[in-house]
Amino acid sequence: MTENTRKYEAAKILLQVSREISSSLDLEKVSEIVLDQSSKALGADHASLFLMDETIRKLMLTKAKGFSADELDNINLLGSWEIINENVIKSKEPLIVNDIRDNFLFKGKKLPFADIELPIHSFLAVPLEVEGKIIGILIVSNRKRPGHLFTEEDKELLEALSNNIAIALLNAKLYHRLKNLFISTVTSLARAIDAKDAYTSGHSERVMKYAVAIGQELNLDEETLENLRLASILHDIGKIGVKESILMKPAKLLGYERRQIKMHPGIGARIIESIDDSHKIIRGVLEHHERFDGNGYPHHLKGNAISLEGRIIAVADTFDALTTDRPYQKGLSKEAAFDRIREASSTQFDPKVVEAFVISYHKHPEIWLEK
Amino acid sequence: MTENTRKYEAAKILLQVSREISSSLDLEKVSEIVLDQSSKALGADHASLFLMDETIRKLMLTKAKGFSADELDNINLLGSWEIINENVIKSKEPLIVNDIRDNFLFKGKKLPFADIELPIHSFLAVPLEVEGKIIGILIVSNRKRPGHLFTEEDKELLEALSNNIAIALLNAKLYHRLKNLFISTVTSLARAIDAKDAYTSGHSERVMKYAVAIGQELNLDEETLENLRLASILHDIGKIGVKESILMKPAKLLGYERRQIKMHPGIGARIIESIDDSHKIIRGVLEHHERFDGNGYPHHLKGNAISLEGRIIAVADTFDALTTDRPYQKGLSKEAAFDRIREASSTQFDPKVVEAFVISYHKHPEIWLEK
Repeated sequence: MTENTRKYEAAKILLQVSREISSSLDLEKVSEIVLDQSSKALGADHASLFLMDETIRKLMLTKAKGFSADELDNINLLGSWEIINENVIKSKEPLIVNDIRDNFLFKGKKLPFADIELPIHSFLAVPLEVEGKIIGILIVSNRKRPGHLFTEEDKELLEALSNNIAIALLNAKLYHRLKNLFISTVTSLARAIDAKDAYTSGHSERVMKYAVAIGQELNLDEETLENLRLASILHDIGKIGVKESILMKPAKLLGYERRQIKMHPGIGARIIESIDDSHKIIRGVLEHHERFDGNGYPHHLKGNAISLEGRIIAVADTFDALTTDRPYQKGLSKEAAFDRIREASSTQFDPKVVEAFVISYHKHPEIWLEK
Repeated sequence: MTENTRKYEAAKILLQVSREISSSLDLEKVSEIVLDQSSKALGADHASLFLMDETIRKLMLTKAKGFSADELDNINLLGSWEIINENVIKSKEPLIVNDIRDNFLFKGKKLPFADIELPIHSFLAVPLEVEGKIIGILIVSNRKRPGHLFTEEDKELLEALSNNIAIALLNAKLYHRLKNLFISTVTSLARAIDAKDAYTSGHSERVMKYAVAIGQELNLDEETLENLRLASILHDIGKIGVKESILMKPAKLLGYERRQIKMHPGIGARIIESIDDSHKIIRGVLEHHERFDGNGYPHHLKGNAISLEGRIIAVADTFDALTTDRPYQKGLSKEAAFDRIREASSTQFDPKVVEAFVISYHKHPEIWLEK
C-alpha cells in the first residue's frame, strides 16, 4: 500500500460518513444520521444537535441520542447547553472540555453542581457553519467515567466533517421548507374552492387527513403517501368547473343538476393533467366516486380496476360527507358514519381499505373524532 | 505533523470537494461544480457529465466543459460517448484509457478515426451510483498531447468521490422535481380559476411570465424572483370569492358589481394568509391594483409604500388586460398597450418598474409579443 493509497483510506472513511449524512433530504433522518455517525466515529456515549431557529434567532435542541429523559432534564436544569453554546458561538471554534467540573466555563457559575448528577463528564462541541454563518452546533459527549477523553485528533476529525454536516442539514431544511410551502399553498387553494360550496368548508383538508391515516395503516411507502396526500387534497378541485348556483343550492338537487355535479371528478382530472407527474395523482381524483361493485361514476370501474388512491379517497370522502351537516339534512354522528362505512364494505368500498379504516379509527381517535 | 494529522490533510481536501459539490440544490449549478472540481482535482482538460433520463432509460450528456463546439460534434459523430458509457455500465467499475486509439474498446470498431480529429486522447470514466443503481457517468479527459496520463491514484480519488457526487446530483434532482411539481400544480389551479372568468383564460400565466421578466430586468435575487413568481401566478386567486354572475357578465359592470370585483385582492390575501412564509407573497397579491399616485385600491397606498411585487404585478397585469379581447371591447395591439403603460409612468405605475418593462420589451420580444 503506497503512502498515497493510505492517505485515501482515511479520506474514504470520512467521505463515506459525509455521504451517509447527505443521503437524505428528510431533516429528521439527516439529524439522526448526524448523531449516529458522529457518536460512532468518536466513540462517544451521547450526541446532541442544535439548529438555529431563524425566526427567534436562537439555537434549539433538535435531537439528542444516548440520554435518558432524567439526564436530559438535569442538563436543562443546569443550563449546561447554554453555557457550551454561548462559548462556541463567541469563538466560532470547536471546544473540548475533558473535566466539566474543573473547567473555566463552569467555574464560578452559581449552578447547583453539587446537588445534581450531571450526566456529561467530557464533551467536544463544534460549530456548524455555512458561508461563515453558524446554522447549528453539534456536541458529542461522554458519561462520567474515567479514561474517556476527547483528543485533538477527535477535534480535527469532527471539524473536518462539520461543514459537510452543516450543508447536509441546510439542504434538508431547504427541501423541508419547499415541501411545506407546496402543501400549504395547495391546501389554501383547496380551502378556497371548498368555500364555494357553502356546505363543505374544510372538507378537502379533512379528507386528506383521513386518506393519509388509512394509507399509513396500509403501510404505503412515503412516495405513494405523498401522491395520496396531493390527490386527496385536490379530489374536489373539479367543483371549480361546476356552476355556483348548483353548488350553493340549499335544497336537494334535480336530475340535470346532479348530472352536472357528477362531472366534477372528470373536470378535476383535466385540471391536474398539466401537473408534472400528474399520472400519479390523477386517478385518485378521477376515481374517488367509483364504487367497488362497479356502480359508481364516472367510468363504472370495478374492484381493483379502481386505483388504490381512488378506493382510499372514496372511504375518506364518504366518512366526511356523512358526518357533515347539510341545510336539508343533519350530519350523522361519527359512530353512525363508522357503521355505515363498515356496512358498505365490498359493495361501495374495497374491504381491505375498510379494514384499514376500522383499525385506524380505533387506534387514532384523535384523527377521526375531532371535528 | 503526526501521521494521523497527515491522513486528515488528504481527507480534508476531498471533504472540501465533496462539500463544494453538495453546496447547492440547483441541478445546473451542481453539475457545473462537479465538472470544475473533478477536472481541477485531476488536472484534466475536459470533464463531461451524463445523467440517466428515467423516462427513456438512457444516459444523456447533461453538461461538458473544456470542449469547443466542433470538438463536441466530432465526439458525437464518432459515437465515443456511447462506447465508453456502455463499458462502464456493463462493468460498473471505473475505466482508464490512456491511448484511446490503441485501446481494445475502440479497436475493430468501424469508426472513421483516420479522418476525424478525436479531441480525447486519454480518459477516466467513473459510474455514479446510489444504492447500487447507476444514475450517471462522469468522464474526465485530456487533449491529445503526450505525457498526460491518468494513474491508478487518479482513479482511486475519483472513485472515492463518485458516490458523494452521485448523492449531490440526486438531491438536486429531487429538489428540482419538487419545485416543478409545485409550480405546475399552482399553475394548473390558477388556470382553473382563470377559466371561471370567461375572458381571462391564460391570464395568470402570462402575468407571471411578464412579472418575472420585469423582475429579472431589475436584477432581483433568486429568492425575491421566486416570491414574485408565486405572487403573480396567484394574483387573481381572490376572484374565486367573487360571484360567477359578475365574473361572467358579458357587459360593462354596474357600480355595486364593480365594488364586488374590487374586493378580489383582499379576498386573495386572506386565502393565501395560511400559506407558510405567506407574508412574502401576500403583499404582491393584495397590492396589485394599487396605483403609484395613490388612487388605486384597496388601500390607496402611494409610491414605495406599495410593495415592489405589487408595483411589478400592476404593470404585468395591466399589459395583459389591455391586450386581451373582451366581449364589449377588442384588446389593444401590443404596441398600443406598450405606449399606454409608458404614458402611465409615475401616475399609475412606478417609473423604475416601467423603465425595466421598456428595456425587457425591447430585449425580449419573444416574451412580450407572443400571444
